[in-house]
This record gives sequence, C-alpha cells and structure tokens, in this order.
Amino acid sequence: MDSGNIVVFTASGQEMELVNKKLPELRPGEILVQNHYTTICGSDLHTFCGLRKEKTPTVLGHEIVGKVVKISDAHSGNDYSGAPLRQGDVVTWSIFSANDQSDMAQRGMPQKSENVFKYGHALVTDDDCFHGGLAEYTILKPNTAVLKLPEEVPLPVAATINCAVATVAGALRLAGELTHKTVLITGMGLLGVVCAAMCRVAGAAKIIAADIDELRLQQAISFGVNQTHLLQHQSIDTPIDVVFDMSGAPTAMEAGIEALGVGGVAVWVGAVFKNRKIEIDAEQIIRRLITIRGLHNYNYDDFANAVAFISEHHRSFPFEQIVAKEFSLPEAEQAFQYALTHKPLRVGIRINHL
Amino acid sequence: MDSGNIVVFTASGQEMELVNKKLPELRPGEILVQNHYTTICGSDLHTFCGLRKEKTPTVLGHEIVGKVVKISDAHSGNDYSGAPLRQGDVVTWSIFSANDQSDMAQRGMPQKSENVFKYGHALVTDDDCFHGGLAEYTILKPNTAVLKLPEEVPLPVAATINCAVATVAGALRLAGELTHKTVLITGMGLLGVVCAAMCRVAGAAKIIAADIDELRLQQAISFGVNQTHLLQHQSIDTPIDVVFDMSGAPTAMEAGIEALGVGGVAVWVGAVFKNRKIEIDAEQIIRRLITIRGLHNYNYDDFANAVAFISEHHRSFPFEQIVAKEFSLPEAEQAFQYALTHKPLRVGIRINHL
Repeated sequence: MDSGNIVVFTASGQEMELVNKKLPELRPGEILVQNHYTTICGSDLHTFCGLRKEKTPTVLGHEIVGKVVKISDAHSGNDYSGAPLRQGDVVTWSIFSANDQSDMAQRGMPQKSENVFKYGHALVTDDDCFHGGLAEYTILKPNTAVLKLPEEVPLPVAATINCAVATVAGALRLAGELTHKTVLITGMGLLGVVCAAMCRVAGAAKIIAADIDELRLQQAISFGVNQTHLLQHQSIDTPIDVVFDMSGAPTAMEAGIEALGVGGVAVWVGAVFKNRKIEIDAEQIIRRLITIRGLHNYNYDDFANAVAFISEHHRSFPFEQIVAKEFSLPEAEQAFQYALTHKPLRVGIRINHL
Repeated sequence: MDSGNIVVFTASGQEMELVNKKLPELRPGEILVQNHYTTICGSDLHTFCGLRKEKTPTVLGHEIVGKVVKISDAHSGNDYSGAPLRQGDVVTWSIFSANDQSDMAQRGMPQKSENVFKYGHALVTDDDCFHGGLAEYTILKPNTAVLKLPEEVPLPVAATINCAVATVAGALRLAGELTHKTVLITGMGLLGVVCAAMCRVAGAAKIIAADIDELRLQQAISFGVNQTHLLQHQSIDTPIDVVFDMSGAPTAMEAGIEALGVGGVAVWVGAVFKNRKIEIDAEQIIRRLITIRGLHNYNYDDFANAVAFISEHHRSFPFEQIVAKEFSLPEAEQAFQYALTHKPLRVGIRINHL
C-alpha cells in the first residue's frame, strides 16, 4: 500500500486517464482514507462538459465515502463530534478544508474562507494528488470536518452526504422553521428529492415538487412529496411559504417567487452556472415581505445535520434508488458518459480494492 | 368640541377641500386624539399625483402626532407599553389597526392581517372620517398600538415616527446585527437619513450614503454618514455588508446587490410603486450567500423601537431640519404643491386649534 490509482481529468473532450501514483507520507494533521464509493455530482458533469472551469489536471468527484487507513500523529484522533477515530471507521468529510479561525468561518461561512481547499476541485501536483473521489485514496487535510458513519448506511447513500445532503441541510437552515408550512421545490434532481425528504421530516404540511420532466416528478413522490407540478404546463396556485430552487432555471426561479405568499422565503441553490438574469418585481418582494437567500456549499453545522439525517432516516425514503448504475474506477469515463446520456439522479463509482 | 375640520382628497388634479364634520360618539375601545402635527410622506404625494390608487374620498396623512382628548370606557386605558394614558398625553400610534390574534399578526406581520385598517388610507364615510392626518382629530380604532411620547420631542420629529422611523426600525430588524458592519444606503430621503442615524446608533463601522442628488447627500452627512456616493457617477468599490434601498430605483437596487460582499444582506424598502423589474444574477446571489429581504410597513416591535429611538436620540442628529417648510391645515393643498416642487425631506402641517 505505497501507491494508489487516480483518474486524471485534463480537459473537456479529452478522455480521463487512470494513473498510478505513489502515496506520500502523511503531513501533520492529515488522515489517509481508502475511498470506497463516489457519486458523480452535477458540478462534476459541468466541469466534464466544459460548462465550468477548474484548474487542471484535477481529480473529479467530491461525493465520497471511505474508511480510515492511517491518522497522522499530530491529528487530535477525534472526529468533528469528538468521537475517537480508528482504522477501518467509515467516514464522510466536509467538501472543504478551511481555516476555522478565519473571519468567514467565524461568521458561519467556512466554505468562503480565504485559501479554502475543496476536494474534487484541486490541482494535481507531484506531491498532492489524492484529493478527489475518482481515486483509490483521499488524504484529508487538517481542518477538514470528518464524521464517522454507521456501518449500515449503504455506501451509495453515504457518498452523497458531503455534497448533496449537506447542501440541502444548509438550504433548510436558511428557510427557517418548516412545521406546518407549504413548501415548493423546483428541480427534482438529487437535491430536490433530498430536500423533499428533509422537509417531510422537518414537519412541512405540504410538499409540492415541480420539474419539467415527468419521470423526475414520478421518482420524487416516494421522497415525501404530496403533489407534483409539471412546470410550464401547470400554474402553481397555492400560496407557498417556502420555495427551494434546485434547478437553476430562471423560469423556475421566477415562478417560485411568483408563487410565494406574504412572508414567503425563496432559497436558491441550483443556479451555480452562467445563465440569463432573474427578473424580479421589487414591489411584490416588498409588499409581500419576501426573502430571497442564496446558498453555495454549506457550513459545519449543515454537514453535521446531514450526517445525522442520513444516519437516522436513510431507511425512511428510497435513497438506495438514487444510484441508477454503478461503474468501477477504471470505468470512470464511461460512468460520466452514462450520466450525461441518461441523466439519472446519480451514477456511482464503486471503488474495489484488491 | 363636537365638530372638527378634515381635508378631503377626491382625485388627483382636483383641489383638496376643507370640510367641517361632526365628531361621532366614541365606540368601545376607541380613543379621540387631537392632531397637532402631520408630515407629508412620499406615499401621500404618490396618491396626490395619481401614481397610487386609494379608495376616495379619503383624508391623506398618516405621519401624525397628537394629544389624547378622550378614551372610551371599554379601552384598557393603557398604552402599548402598559403605561396609563391620560387626557393631554402626547401620543403616536401604529399606522394600522390589526387583529392581533390573526394568523399574520401571530407570525410577526400584523400589517398584513386580513381587514387591516390603515390611517391616512381609508374611505371617508358619513360616520367614519376622522382617520387621517390632514384633519383636526383622529379617532383611534381598537387594536391600534398607541405609545406616549416625551413632551420634549419636537412635534415635526414626533410626527414622522409612525411611518418613516418605524419602517426604518423594521428594515434594521431584517438586516440583523450591524455592529462593525459596512452599510450602504441608497436613496437619502427621510428614510435614508433616519436609516443612517439608526445604523450609527446600532454600531455600524462605516455608513455610505448614495443618491443621484448632491444636495440630499450633503444633508445626509450630519445623520451619521461617513462617505457619500453620487450614483451613476461613482462606482461603489467597498465590499458592503448591508445595503438598504430607500430609493425604489431599479438601478440603485441593482448597484446595491452588486456591491454586496459574501454573506451580504439587501433590504428593499423604497420600491412601493410600479417600475421595471430588477435584474439579478442568481449565480452571484448563490456564490456570495446573499440575502434579499423586502419590507412594507412594520410590526409592533418596530414601532416600539422607533419610539424608543426618537425618544432617546432626537437630539443626537439634526432631525429638526427634516421639515423644510410648515403650513396650516387649510393650506394643505399648497403644502402638497410645495412638496412636489421643492422635494424637501418633509413638509409639515402644523394643526392649530383655536
């Protein structure tokens, strides 16, 4: 175990390459994790297609779950909750490593700290290449929030925690109290269905799922949805208390604002790519006392809440259905092509270790 | 004292008319107040010009201060803070009378209750016409929050509490903690200067005032402003923590959002009239974790905070300068014409009682 495979992404349109790399010695505060499962996120696909720019070469994949192999001496030896970490523990970790003393971290936004490091979004260099999910190992940097997971959480579900689920946990934080509320979710990809499940557990009275795709609406129903809306075909007539936009589609975001009642809250999550501007009637925002909040990534509390949610509720909703097809690490290129062609909620990479 | 004069507004372009009306018997829970001073608000001018529709005939004016004349037997006899009300007390009151058990009131938005009644915005009928500031009396309806004011607060300043000052108090509530924050205020009318003063008292580190009018910027400086910006001529380069828009101008609102740093908050107050839509880059709202909140009117806490602020700080800032010119009640028509021609922060109506 002195080397491991990584899948290197160099440029859109250029095939990703499996490369064997020497595992470096752990630096103080680092943890070596053997990756077991990675799910391909929408933003991975955006980078793969050239819709989003990252420094390259890079190792994509940031929705990862793995097992602890080795903990450097300088590490506290505990996970983010204070529980002791041991070799073989199943762990998930924050998508970012941030200086938790930074101004942004102190203000509850560690993901926006200066010099933040993001797994699955970093440059491959000679001595630093085990930082993405399309690899056999990840070396966790200091100031990464690591949390142990119960063994019984299926790996494909566990993999989605540190991006999709934690982001949705952040969205619920921004939305405020959901008990007895009427919720609209636009965009029923993975974030949409996780959001429905979390709103259901949070006590929402009614959850309306909206999408332009009938199949996605069908899939969403078993995640706690009460009613579905085929966008651009049906108007949303109920006054909505909270709308979550997971689609990033301007028309969906505009329809969501339009549907809000007095005191309504819109949480925007999906629009992390270039698009036309959203047109808003300021008079309506004012007269209806509306709040619009943007969320990108999540903070430590959101991450901890995501782990708690999946640990407790992974059997309450059909989360095991989110991965439509599994590939092995050497098949990463095919996995991305499959994801682009079939657009399932997630495609999984099961990383087998011989 | 069985009758009083009211100034009736019937339609834009039609001269307002002074009419003597019989004072009706107080109904249970009502309070008869002798109006002493009314300031003309921007929304009064909008109605006067036909930019805004109200049911007519009506009595305009809702920024009013007066003295208690008579309290109906069924009234608790106390003001909103629980202090006993006596004849001759100087009082201000919430712009609205709302059912405080309504769903909206319970959710902190009494101003949006069903069947809410708003002073200065109501229909004149045979038995209900003393409900505006352009009159010698106001009959306060049950469920109006009434608060006593210290005698030493100048009447022109006291008059602005229940609209301008209370609305700004609501805007600060929505903005959250202001200590050490950099604040931008777009639109330096009365709401803008009151906002500057309140942000100063709330501990803001830096207050930047922006307007398209150089004179308004000059006036604003003595209300706690650190820096001024002539909009459309200078770009705002500091990353802003909180922007308050009091102008309602789409370009100002867009520039305000643009100037926000990570975690920034925009509070929109000014745009209570028809205008073009605001164009927003959703990706920026998301990546910068921005919040946009609309405010219309205010709730009970905001009103109480406004009274406390003016009671304590009316000497700390040159509030007495806000009224550029005073008129008597029979001169109401000229007062409106003056306000439209000269656009001062406020024009006052001093209501003399013979």
